Parts: sequence; structure tokens; C-alpha cells
Amino acid sequence: MRMAELSSASGVPVATIKYYLREGLLQPGERTSPNQARYGEAHVRRLKLVRALIDVGGLSIAAVQETLAAIDDHVSTHSALGFAQKGITVPDVVVDEETRAWALGRFEPIAKEHGWEPCDDDPAVETLISVMSAFRDLGHENLLDGLPRYAEAVRRIAEQDLASLAGMKSVEQIVESAAVGTVLGDTLLMALRRIAQQEVSERVYGKD
Amino acid sequence: MRMAELSSASGVPVATIKYYLREGLLQPGERTSPNQARYGEAHVRRLKLVRALIDVGGLSIAAVQETLAAIDDHVSTHSALGFAQKGITVPDVVVDEETRAWALGRFEPIAKEHGWEPCDDDPAVETLISVMSAFRDLGHENLLDGLPRYAEAVRRIAEQDLASLAGMKSVEQIVESAAVGTVLGDTLLMALRRIAQQEVSERVYGKD
Repeated sequence: MRMAELSSASGVPVATIKYYLREGLLQPGERTSPNQARYGEAHVRRLKLVRALIDVGGLSIAAVQETLAAIDDHVSTHSALGFAQKGITVPDVVVDEETRAWALGRFEPIAKEHGWEPCDDDPAVETLISVMSAFRDLGHENLLDGLPRYAEAVRRIAEQDLASLAGMKSVEQIVESAAVGTVLGDTLLMALRRIAQQEVSERVYGKD
Repeated sequence: MRMAELSSASGVPVATIKYYLREGLLQPGERTSPNQARYGEAHVRRLKLVRALIDVGGLSIAAVQETLAAIDDHVSTHSALGFAQKGITVPDVVVDEETRAWALGRFEPIAKEHGWEPCDDDPAVETLISVMSAFRDLGHENLLDGLPRYAEAVRRIAEQDLASLAGMKSVEQIVESAAVGTVLGDTLLMALRRIAQQEVSERVYGKD
């Protein structure tokens, strides 16, 4: 199909498709003349994926690029799942050495209990340290008392994340599903958390 | 203190402070002359909070405004906790009636089991529907098989969220802690989920 048909099939405006092509979010079509290219179903699918990551997952263009690179460059199922390491945007915050040591000191016993052995420069660990540092800096260190229970709950979530992939056959399927499930899954879990908070809050503090 | 001192005390550049004042993210200082104002510790605290919400929580200026309004306008502890309802950015996606009914059909039995009774236009429910719709649209409906286990894990997270607030005395403290814990907590949980996924993935698929 031509660019105009790709636009109607995907619901994405032509100008946006051209932007995605320039940014490398969409693979180029097959050239049929110097000014025309032909696109196929794979392009429609990829456009839908890009839109979902941006509109539903709230990802930036840069984060979409990283997620797609992880989907396209998978070498093994495990390292593909390790895409998650890349699919996280580390907060741009400077944490001093003392705070860093304090945060790791609180996290390490919990990680050990669950057999988690992230490497030192793991973006997820960096992100965790930034949040813990912000809690302390803002005078809400009390929020960290729940860390062991959060870790316990999140372990169950991660077990389920992997279980959802179990029935899939091709590495391509597993990798795309893992990426979509992790990125959009963050949004889903965020929504569920708010719904659950309402009920607990009503139970504890009563209705208005 | 003067604007320049507020800048050094908070680590936020003067130009950024002026921008926050214009956007209403920071309360005005006490006017001491037509061109000067005096700021206090409350301003330093508020600036730190704004920076954390933006840099660590990844919030937009609009989302920060909503979060601060929820903190400032609290009428009761429960409705303040209900800020969470506002602190979520609903994906800008159109979901057709059939898909909407399908998504609610899958979610309602789970909500019922946990005693969750969100109202129909709850932004968290709208967000949930968008994600479920995206999963189906992208051919990853399998990811929804885990919904009951996700709900179960998230219920524990919400219980902990509320437990962290139990020791606090003033409504102001509870409300700010709930806002910070929910917004930055999303980032913390996202980071923990990736760390946990790595371990489960290694266990299931082996190391590279």
C-alpha cells in the first residue's frame, strides 16, 4: 500500500508517519520510484505499537526508540527481557555518595532476600536510589517502611509477567509481548493501584 | 530570604523559580517593595517538592499543578487521598463502545472480588480500559490473563500505601505524604518490577 493508505489503515496522519520514518521508529517502505514507496502489514502493526507506547504508555520518542531497538535487536529471550533495563528513564538527579550508600544499605537486605542481584549501574537501581533519596529529602522517609512489602508484591507481579509469556512460541512474539507488557503494564498497574487505594482509603478514613 | 537566596537554598535557578511562580507552582513571596519579595522555608520545601515530582516522578507541569492543588485544597483525609484520581493522566485514546464493554466485562468480576467500586468516569478506570484495549489491538490479549494476580498484588501495595500514613498526625502531613508516595511510588514500583523481572527471567530462561 502507498503512504496515504498506510495512514488510513493505521489511523496515523501522513505527517506523523514521515516524522516516525525520519526518527527511525518505522522501517522504510520498499522503494517503487524515487518519490514513492510501498508499505505492508508489518508497517501497520509497527505504527500501532508506536502509537500505543506513546499514547497509552506515555513514552517519549527517545524511550520508544530504545524499546523498539530492544524488540528488534533481541539476541536471546533473557537478554530481550533485560530490555526492561533500557526501557526505564533514569531520573536526571544527582545523588551524593552518603545518600547513595544509605539507600543501598536499605535496599540490599531486601534484594538479598529475593535473590535479586542487579549490577551496580543498573538503571532500575539508579532510579530506585533517586526515589529513595527524594523521599528522604522531602521529609517522607516513613514511606520507605513499606519497602519489604512492596518488594514482596512486586515479586508476584514479575512472576506473573513472565508467566504470561510462557505459551508463546517464537522469540519475536515473546520479546514484543514482554516489551508491551512491561511498558503498558506500568500504566495498567498504576491505574489498578489508584482504584485499590480508593477502597482501602474509604475503609480506613471513611467516605466523605 | 530574597529570590537569589531562595535559588541557592533550593538549588533551582532563578529563571526556573520565576517560571514556577507564573505557573502557580510556587506561592508568591511576601512583597517588600514593588520589585522585591521575601521568601521563607515553605518556599524552599515547595520547590524541592516540585523538582522531585518533575525530575523523579516524571510529571508534566500540568500534572504537578493538579497534584499541588490536591495537596493544597484537601477537605478531608479520604478525599485528599482521592487526589490519586486526579494525579493520573488518562491516555488520549478513543476506545469504541464494544471494546469498552469487553474491557469492563473482564475487569468487573475482579473489582467485585476486591470490593472496588470506582465510579464510571474514574480516570483510573479510563486508563485501565485504554491499556486493555491496546493489549488487544496489538495482539497481546494474553497479557490480560494475569489481571487477577496483578489485582491481588496491587491490593497489597495499596494496603501498604495507606499503612505508611498511619503514624502521621496532621491532615497536611498525611496529604502530602500520600501525594508523594503515590506519584514517586509509581516510579519506585516500576524500578522494583524491572529488578524482580531480571531474576525471574534468569530463572526461567537462563543467563545469556
